[in-house]
Amino acid sequence: MVLGKSKYMQVVNPVYAGDIPASEMKLSYINYNSDSAETKDVSSIDEVIKLKDDSKMLWINVSGLKDIESIKRLGESLEIHPLTIEDILQTEQQAKMEIFDKYRFLLVKTIMQKKNTFCHLSLGKKKFFLPFGKDRRFTNMNINTDELVITQIGIVIMKNILLTFQELSRGAFEGIRKKIMENTGEIRRMESDYLAYLIIDKIVGEYFDSINHLEEHIENLEERATKTSDDTYIEEIQETKKYLLLVKKAILPLKENLLLISRQESFFQTGEIKPFLQDLIENLDHAVMQVEHYREWLSSVMEVNLSVLSYQLNKVMKVLAMISAIFIPLSFIAGIYGMNFQNMPELSTSFGYFIVLGIMFLVATVMIIFFKVRRWF
Amino acid sequence: MVLGKSKYMQVVNPVYAGDIPASEMKLSYINYNSDSAETKDVSSIDEVIKLKDDSKMLWINVSGLKDIESIKRLGESLEIHPLTIEDILQTEQQAKMEIFDKYRFLLVKTIMQKKNTFCHLSLGKKKFFLPFGKDRRFTNMNINTDELVITQIGIVIMKNILLTFQELSRGAFEGIRKKIMENTGEIRRMESDYLAYLIIDKIVGEYFDSINHLEEHIENLEERATKTSDDTYIEEIQETKKYLLLVKKAILPLKENLLLISRQESFFQTGEIKPFLQDLIENLDHAVMQVEHYREWLSSVMEVNLSVLSYQLNKVMKVLAMISAIFIPLSFIAGIYGMNFQNMPELSTSFGYFIVLGIMFLVATVMIIFFKVRRWF
Amino acid sequence: MVLGKSKYMQVVNPVYAGDIPASEMKLSYINYNSDSAETKDVSSIDEVIKLKDDSKMLWINVSGLKDIESIKRLGESLEIHPLTIEDILQTEQQAKMEIFDKYRFLLVKTIMQKKNTFCHLSLGKKKFFLPFGKDRRFTNMNINTDELVITQIGIVIMKNILLTFQELSRGAFEGIRKKIMENTGEIRRMESDYLAYLIIDKIVGEYFDSINHLEEHIENLEERATKTSDDTYIEEIQETKKYLLLVKKAILPLKENLLLISRQESFFQTGEIKPFLQDLIENLDHAVMQVEHYREWLSSVMEVNLSVLSYQLNKVMKVLAMISAIFIPLSFIAGIYGMNFQNMPELSTSFGYFIVLGIMFLVATVMIIFFKVRRWF
Amino acid sequence: MVLGKSKYMQVVNPVYAGDIPASEMKLSYINYNSDSAETKDVSSIDEVIKLKDDSKMLWINVSGLKDIESIKRLGESLEIHPLTIEDILQTEQQAKMEIFDKYRFLLVKTIMQKKNTFCHLSLGKKKFFLPFGKDRRFTNMNINTDELVITQIGIVIMKNILLTFQELSRGAFEGIRKKIMENTGEIRRMESDYLAYLIIDKIVGEYFDSINHLEEHIENLEERATKTSDDTYIEEIQETKKYLLLVKKAILPLKENLLLISRQESFFQTGEIKPFLQDLIENLDHAVMQVEHYREWLSSVMEVNLSVLSYQLNKVMKVLAMISAIFIPLSFIAGIYGMNFQNMPELSTSFGYFIVLGIMFLVATVMIIFFKVRRWF
Amino acid sequence: MVLGKSKYMQVVNPVYAGDIPASEMKLSYINYNSDSAETKDVSSIDEVIKLKDDSKMLWINVSGLKDIESIKRLGESLEIHPLTIEDILQTEQQAKMEIFDKYRFLLVKTIMQKKNTFCHLSLGKKKFFLPFGKDRRFTNMNINTDELVITQIGIVIMKNILLTFQELSRGAFEGIRKKIMENTGEIRRMESDYLAYLIIDKIVGEYFDSINHLEEHIENLEERATKTSDDTYIEEIQETKKYLLLVKKAILPLKENLLLISRQESFFQTGEIKPFLQDLIENLDHAVMQVEHYREWLSSVMEVNLSVLSYQLNKVMKVLAMISAIFIPLSFIAGIYGMNFQNMPELSTSFGYFIVLGIMFLVATVMIIFFKVRRWF
Repeated sequence: MVLGKSKYMQVVNPVYAGDIPASEMKLSYINYNSDSAETKDVSSIDEVIKLKDDSKMLWINVSGLKDIESIKRLGESLEIHPLTIEDILQTEQQAKMEIFDKYRFLLVKTIMQKKNTFCHLSLGKKKFFLPFGKDRRFTNMNINTDELVITQIGIVIMKNILLTFQELSRGAFEGIRKKIMENTGEIRRMESDYLAYLIIDKIVGEYFDSINHLEEHIENLEERATKTSDDTYIEEIQETKKYLLLVKKAILPLKENLLLISRQESFFQTGEIKPFLQDLIENLDHAVMQVEHYREWLSSVMEVNLSVLSYQLNKVMKVLAMISAIFIPLSFIAGIYGMNFQNMPELSTSFGYFIVLGIMFLVATVMIIFFKVRRWF
Repeated sequence: MVLGKSKYMQVVNPVYAGDIPASEMKLSYINYNSDSAETKDVSSIDEVIKLKDDSKMLWINVSGLKDIESIKRLGESLEIHPLTIEDILQTEQQAKMEIFDKYRFLLVKTIMQKKNTFCHLSLGKKKFFLPFGKDRRFTNMNINTDELVITQIGIVIMKNILLTFQELSRGAFEGIRKKIMENTGEIRRMESDYLAYLIIDKIVGEYFDSINHLEEHIENLEERATKTSDDTYIEEIQETKKYLLLVKKAILPLKENLLLISRQESFFQTGEIKPFLQDLIENLDHAVMQVEHYREWLSSVMEVNLSVLSYQLNKVMKVLAMISAIFIPLSFIAGIYGMNFQNMPELSTSFGYFIVLGIMFLVATVMIIFFKVRRWF
Repeated sequence: MVLGKSKYMQVVNPVYAGDIPASEMKLSYINYNSDSAETKDVSSIDEVIKLKDDSKMLWINVSGLKDIESIKRLGESLEIHPLTIEDILQTEQQAKMEIFDKYRFLLVKTIMQKKNTFCHLSLGKKKFFLPFGKDRRFTNMNINTDELVITQIGIVIMKNILLTFQELSRGAFEGIRKKIMENTGEIRRMESDYLAYLIIDKIVGEYFDSINHLEEHIENLEERATKTSDDTYIEEIQETKKYLLLVKKAILPLKENLLLISRQESFFQTGEIKPFLQDLIENLDHAVMQVEHYREWLSSVMEVNLSVLSYQLNKVMKVLAMISAIFIPLSFIAGIYGMNFQNMPELSTSFGYFIVLGIMFLVATVMIIFFKVRRWF
Repeated sequence: MVLGKSKYMQVVNPVYAGDIPASEMKLSYINYNSDSAETKDVSSIDEVIKLKDDSKMLWINVSGLKDIESIKRLGESLEIHPLTIEDILQTEQQAKMEIFDKYRFLLVKTIMQKKNTFCHLSLGKKKFFLPFGKDRRFTNMNINTDELVITQIGIVIMKNILLTFQELSRGAFEGIRKKIMENTGEIRRMESDYLAYLIIDKIVGEYFDSINHLEEHIENLEERATKTSDDTYIEEIQETKKYLLLVKKAILPLKENLLLISRQESFFQTGEIKPFLQDLIENLDHAVMQVEHYREWLSSVMEVNLSVLSYQLNKVMKVLAMISAIFIPLSFIAGIYGMNFQNMPELSTSFGYFIVLGIMFLVATVMIIFFKVRRWF
Repeated sequence: MVLGKSKYMQVVNPVYAGDIPASEMKLSYINYNSDSAETKDVSSIDEVIKLKDDSKMLWINVSGLKDIESIKRLGESLEIHPLTIEDILQTEQQAKMEIFDKYRFLLVKTIMQKKNTFCHLSLGKKKFFLPFGKDRRFTNMNINTDELVITQIGIVIMKNILLTFQELSRGAFEGIRKKIMENTGEIRRMESDYLAYLIIDKIVGEYFDSINHLEEHIENLEERATKTSDDTYIEEIQETKKYLLLVKKAILPLKENLLLISRQESFFQTGEIKPFLQDLIENLDHAVMQVEHYREWLSSVMEVNLSVLSYQLNKVMKVLAMISAIFIPLSFIAGIYGMNFQNMPELSTSFGYFIVLGIMFLVATVMIIFFKVRRWF
């Protein structure tokens, strides 16, 4: 999230995956039982469909949802309801959970960090504010920034088959795949429920990663609170707050769905999953509280900034008021001898002018000394 | 709640149903047992009364309480106490719960969203403030707005009969009716208690809908907090706070009544309902806490707005003070040479005037540079 | 608590009963067992004393503690310790609880609302501030106001006899008396403990009534927070806060005494009372928390008021500063041509004066336009 | 803590006992078993030492630690470690707890209120601020004030002997002594543990007394918050906060020591003490929370005071700014006719001067009316 | 942390050990079983390696990680994974915990106080701010200051061997070594797990020491809050806040690691350690909450400071505004008689000038009296 070493180069760009040009769709599967496991990247949906009646566990992963026709065909061949397919393809939805006769369906939002170099500003999105500290003039250039991207993952859990539909192609589940291939832990002996749990656990882990990233950002904001007088500082804080709200809205529905699942019992076939679920729910709860805490933290940081700024402004005002307070009495003295009375004895003395200048000088000096003694500046 | 796409067009209009011209009264019933179910919209109360001694479950729904005579006749024929009927007809009451020998009575407030196009402002209600962001000049036109309406529902639970008296005709219970007709779940086998529970559950669901609607509104307010300087902004916040209080006052008595019910045991005949009730109470508790949280949130949003506004005001003051601080010393110099001393050597020099003008220019320039260097503007 | 319909006419007057001219003392008793019940208002203490060895339950109620002699005689005849009688008669005490051999003694503070028309201000109590919104000039007139009066009740619990000593004559226990006479519920079969519990329960109910009354008052204060600039507003808030403290101090000792009682076991003879006590304590706890919450609420309301007032003040300051900022440069121009240099070519031109006036007009106009464009006013 | 009746005469003087001239040392003992009890004030340590091998319980109380030699001799004869004696004599320590083979040792801080008339200010302690509201000029006089004094008590618990070493002679344990002599409750049958418990319980009771005293003080401060503009008010609050910190630091270590004791089991010989200890710990916990709550309360009181003061200051500023805003335009008009242009037609009219005076009067009047209409003053 | 007695000389310098010139590496071991114990400081790693197959418990302590070659050789001979050795040597890491087949590895951050006299500022580290209250000019001199140093300790737990790798040579574990040598408590009979626990417990104790140190510092800051107007005060607070964040980040990962350990069960071989661990986790939790509390405390202290400063600034502004408000009307009067009207009757009177001077004096006096009466200064 830090761009270069400059203090002001913090970048937090929540980008909805939908805004990013869709990457190629990638298809892959893992086919395994307790004895063997096979993984393959395939180019056509048909290679996968023919494996569906196999007695082995089959995990099909679809990354990038570009080839809508293939996905629909896959859905049909596995008897997935067209509405579910539509939910998977439409990426502007809230997390949801549905139980069908033949399968159970989970829609989850992920928050991931992504390095990218294309320039999203040149696309003309003017409504989205970019919280660059200072160097706004560079925002139209191609810069190398870490981005927090909110994407969507659809999970369809059948008896022997698990399908994951990822909006963006990413290596997030590589670790789970490796675990299966290398037969680490219990995974090969477990059913599709456990695999689904592992995937959700992975996603929750990513939530915490982005929350921690944000913590650093907030610490940086706090540090600047008493020093900065950037006009964009307040906007940066507001932007971060808004982003935290987005994160919360990605996390909260998942938590509620998992809570419902853990109560219903009918979602997962085996009870073994339950303690894992409980753990996940606790973690998500913790994450939500963390986000709430950050929002309050930011509020207090903003208050500190405004207080410090106000105080500094008032110090400037004091100096300006002092200038006025010194010259107004002097002007008054000048004003006296600017009066046109015929009988003003001082006016005709030969040193009157110089004496009055002296008096003015004296008054100014006395006032300055007085202010100095009182430590007013 | 969002009117068009304009950022400032947030509308939250708590309208008491009593203020809306009463719609026609609609009468309908469902007559069912585990084997069959029949539903009918009827025009006369007599069609319903003759069904009362049937052994089937009978749910009578009265929407719109216009035909007072019919309602009283219905009450008499079912041996409902006249005071209960009065409670049902009078819509300015708090939620209540009463146990009679032959029936139990619940009065519940609902909060619902309603699209309407008539213009409530043209009715001359001046006391009620309309929190339109900016375009107050349009408030006298017929506008299409989402409204949050607080209405009242009376529920009379007898052994085989359940009566619902809705202040406004609305489709809220359509889902339950459908469930009965299509025999989904256990509903046809359950008694009137369970039906009552389902209705209350539906109402609680609506509470959450309106609370979520308000959350969006508050988020919008928060976003504007550091930018707006509308005079109506503070009023909008106060109005939303007041509205939250109304929502809380609709929810709280229901919670307390349900709590009393869950303790008394005698309200519902079967113990089966208890865990459902417990769940409802927890949800209502959660809703009340949410509302409290929103009120605090709004307070902090208002504080931020006032702080930002004050800071901006002070920045203006600084510029004004700078203007004074620059011209007051200059005036002083002019004042010196406006004195009428006879012996002022500078006055008689031929370039004195221009030199003094030059000095004035110099002083002003030095001060501006000084302010600039100090980053005072 | 609302006086008329004016928004500013909120009146909360905590009045200690001791300040009110003592009303006549009223004596009454109820004599009952499970079979029969008899109630009578008597004029002389002797009528009561002769009933004391009856086997029936005897509840003696003394309202208004004027006839000290009679009370002392009553105490003597029932073997009540003189110190207890003194506690009863002295009304400036904290709630207390004492266990004697023959009886147990509870001193409780009540908070009740009382309509009265006499004018307490004409009594010359200058120290007690009256939080009238605006119309302080009326405070010396006879006004019809709701008052919250803090009084004291002494309860002496013997085996078959219960004595209540009320500082003020009031109808508070009428409901309990009716219950006994009409033999509703279990009351006639229960011992004096249960009667004592019912009385305390009634008092706790009154606490909640006054707390709810205060809630309305605070809501009204909150509503005015962003609008009012009354000097008395802050005082009203402080007064309400002080009043809340009084309420808390009436409630807290009772709670602690009940807690002690519920632990000691020896206070009430039967264990049956315990769950009722537990309930009472929870309610009192809730009431105390409510009062604390109201105090914090008022603090935040006051802060909002002060912030809004400050902001409005600053807006006035801005206009004043603008007037100065416009005229000071103009004065400077006038000052230049007020200088007495001999060689000032402009002075001798025939239109110089009018040109300078024009320049002044121009400068003022430019500044006003500048301020307007910058939206400074 | 209230000095006289004046509102501003609140005095809270935390005085460390070490600062007070040591009083005479007083020695006394009680010698008792379940049958008999004997108490005596003795002048020499030897009278006590000879009782040490008695089978009766022996409680030796040493008040005022002046005669160091005697105390050391007492320690030696009872085989108390010299380090323990040193801990007892040195009064600037934190509460501590130590277990030795032959005895257990507790060092406790007490907070007591003490009426005294000597003037501690005349001793020349300039560093300690006296939070007198207003009448600082009287602080050098002998005034009769309540003081909160922090002293130290060392408790040595042996099998049959209990020693208490009080820094200051005070009547705090008179009640316990009386209980023993009059054989009230179980005390004579219990061992030294129970006696130690009673002493600690007494000390904890004193903590609550001083906390309640402080509560009154804080209430008084809160009441003054919106009215006072004393410069010392903020200092009073800071002083009270500091004092609360002292109280907390006296209480906290005792709580932690008791917690350790209640876990270790080996400190007290009998398990009977445990529930009493648990109660004490809860009470101390409550006291610490109370103190924390008071500190936060004071912070919010200070904020209110500063907000109100700022607002009042700003109102003064507004009036001053108004004076400037009225006279600056007038000066400008005068300035115009002070210009020296040769062709200024108005100057030669005979009523020009008076017309200009009239215009000035008009301008001033219009401005004042404008300010008045706008309710600016 | 206090430097001398001056109030402003608070020093909190979080220094990462990595910044301090590495001290000599020291090697020592203790070799013990329940019968005997032997401790020795050795100069070469080989002396230690030959003890590894001994059946006794062996604790090897490496202080100062300078001789990388020896450490690597030690690792190899004990079959420690090279990555673990790298973790030990690299001191910029977070706390971690890893389980290997032959050993378990813990990396812990310690916070210790260290007296030192060298001047770290002369090393040219300009980025790190030194929160000296006032006397910044001395920071380049060699001063004797207490420092809080964050170092790292690696702990490798094998069956019979425990290795500790300390970044800095320090006497922290001297107490544990002594306990072993003197055979106090159960330590000699316990396994390496227990020894590891004792070491972590020691480190946690040090955390609390530094937290308590910080508390004093914060109390000092709070005391100065209403008095100081140092520009560095705010920076000191920010610096302390930042430091608290560092402390929290040292503590939090250890807590999470211990939590993981206490759940996994496989980390420690014996279950006996569990209750100890639970205690440690509670303590760490308490420490984290304490740190959070301190951060909030500092925020409120800063707010108080800013409020007080603002108020004092405004008081200065008021005096300045008064000076202007007095002289501007006087200037106006002078301005009137500076007008050049031909017909100004006052000008030709002989005492006009002195009367006007008198009027000016009068106006000034009246204004001053008015301000004084209103208590404006």
